[in-house]
Amino acid sequence: MRISHKTIDCEATEELKGRVQSKSSSKQKEETALRKPMSAKMEQLVRHLQHKITSAVEELEGPNGGRFFHDAWIREEGGEGVSCVLQDGKVFEKAGVNISIVASKAPEGMLQHMRARKREGIDKGPYNMFVAGISLVMHPHNPMAPTVHANYRYFELVEENGDEPVAWWFGGGCDLTPSYLFEEDAIHFHKIIKQACDNHDTAYYPRFKKWCDEYFDVKHRGERRGIGGIFFDDLEDRPAEEIFAFVKDCGESFVDQYVPIVQKRKDMPFTKENKLWQQLRRGRYVEFNLVHDRGTKFGLATPGVRIESVLMSLPLTARWEYGHVPTPGSPEAELLEVLRTPRDWI
Amino acid sequence: MRISHKTIDCEATEELKGRVQSKSSSKQKEETALRKPMSAKMEQLVRHLQHKITSAVEELEGPNGGRFFHDAWIREEGGEGVSCVLQDGKVFEKAGVNISIVASKAPEGMLQHMRARKREGIDKGPYNMFVAGISLVMHPHNPMAPTVHANYRYFELVEENGDEPVAWWFGGGCDLTPSYLFEEDAIHFHKIIKQACDNHDTAYYPRFKKWCDEYFDVKHRGERRGIGGIFFDDLEDRPAEEIFAFVKDCGESFVDQYVPIVQKRKDMPFTKENKLWQQLRRGRYVEFNLVHDRGTKFGLATPGVRIESVLMSLPLTARWEYGHVPTPGSPEAELLEVLRTPRDWI
Repeated sequence: MRISHKTIDCEATEELKGRVQSKSSSKQKEETALRKPMSAKMEQLVRHLQHKITSAVEELEGPNGGRFFHDAWIREEGGEGVSCVLQDGKVFEKAGVNISIVASKAPEGMLQHMRARKREGIDKGPYNMFVAGISLVMHPHNPMAPTVHANYRYFELVEENGDEPVAWWFGGGCDLTPSYLFEEDAIHFHKIIKQACDNHDTAYYPRFKKWCDEYFDVKHRGERRGIGGIFFDDLEDRPAEEIFAFVKDCGESFVDQYVPIVQKRKDMPFTKENKLWQQLRRGRYVEFNLVHDRGTKFGLATPGVRIESVLMSLPLTARWEYGHVPTPGSPEAELLEVLRTPRDWI
Repeated sequence: MRISHKTIDCEATEELKGRVQSKSSSKQKEETALRKPMSAKMEQLVRHLQHKITSAVEELEGPNGGRFFHDAWIREEGGEGVSCVLQDGKVFEKAGVNISIVASKAPEGMLQHMRARKREGIDKGPYNMFVAGISLVMHPHNPMAPTVHANYRYFELVEENGDEPVAWWFGGGCDLTPSYLFEEDAIHFHKIIKQACDNHDTAYYPRFKKWCDEYFDVKHRGERRGIGGIFFDDLEDRPAEEIFAFVKDCGESFVDQYVPIVQKRKDMPFTKENKLWQQLRRGRYVEFNLVHDRGTKFGLATPGVRIESVLMSLPLTARWEYGHVPTPGSPEAELLEVLRTPRDWI
């Protein structure tokens, strides 16, 4: 995977897209053929969400606060992406909102991996693949304000001369990682997500909440990364249009899930000890992402991948202290308790 | 693996050892039977090196500087260890010198792993294992002073009712990770190591220097963790006594390899930018240790292991900046150049 990239501002995205599509007429045809309705819709959604979310974060930062740096890249084999990163702002230590839209031949290694996993109906090939996704992480300065992560993605495979996808699925979720537990924040976050789920299937929230608690397990520490949210993968058990509507609702509700919490916490007073504890929690975040996260592992193992985009999720700063144990009964110990035993928030 | 541990000072080690051995007479006999000459020698060596190295570091710290915290643990299944950790001293941000001496049944999973790897002559079983090792990492405050890592270990398997080891080997090495390159430091470090190697076999240094450059490869970054040293594993190609003498020389030379460099760099003036660059390099150190290091991976995958000892190698603080690229021709760029293309120092 060879990637060329250049730094652009938001307005350049359309021009960039033009360049990707004008690369060669045969490539263009191939790519256009791949842009079936769902892929086009998902591409539009992730572009829209990136704009909506980065705008909301910049509003939180205020008129003299941090601004996103837009880093766009083109994948020679077909595809493009825009990483929006804000570093050392007024409210956020680091925030990243990445999108990628990839249309190309499906690498044989990836197909083998899918077949080994469980995927049926993909024993022929070669296939073209289309992937559109958004991935975001936000680490605020104030230790009372939680870190958040969200990711939504659509994947499909089409036979090289085919038309309809032979396989497709959606995946994603969102989860909150506080350094200090404010129950009202945890309840607010889960309530907004549950509403987005319930609009589509009341079985979704309990199922995906559990999946989230299981996935974000920092096994070697015996604790979860945060206080959960939802997580789902390989979702394809109903018409794509229906699942898309669900994913859209989840993505659209992100700002309502998170921004009011940061608004409430960003100017709270805190001590040096609070900041040190946040830094230790950031260290655990790094441990989960580098040791356990499947997305990061896959990214790091892919030759020629854009490492900066894969590791965008890492905090600006982190800390490891040998044998740190919070005082029993302290707010720090209270957080650990909830990370060790995931709770139902609603 | 259930582990009980308590914090002790140095003098308590002998008392602790007494307790391990007096646990039960059958266990004691089993353990005594395992303490063949080489295992006893190696145990003595790692205990001696821990004392020698922590003393040298405390001397560097000065009369009002940091002191090592001694954290001793006992492994229920047989074995013990002492983690010596110094945090936020005058010279060192974090320094850890761990030893462990384990004598117990060899877990079946470990045997399977060895058989799959290449090991011959261990197709019977059950076996008892003996492992003695020392592992150290030191991260100084001053960005002009390099981080260092060293590790020496001896492993043997004995049939449950047997006497002589059916398999044994030594492994280890040491390597330097500067944030700023001082060629004279790199040359000094490698010269002292080469001398220790040459005393035993002039083929050792070139072979183990290359192995080190290959092992400490942060593949996803296209750069090495540091400027190398030596690395070896599964060493068993001559009498154990001879290899032990080599390992002993390596370990004994550690203080001469590293202390004069820190002595020279610890009080050098530095800017805020130098400190930020050091923090970014610490981030890469974390990436190598959590993503690539075999020892860490093995540690994290072992149920019930002492996580704090496994992750002792992580720095106190680290930093990740999106898309950081040093100015061409700067000292930061010069370091990267050498990490991308390992150099012969002598």
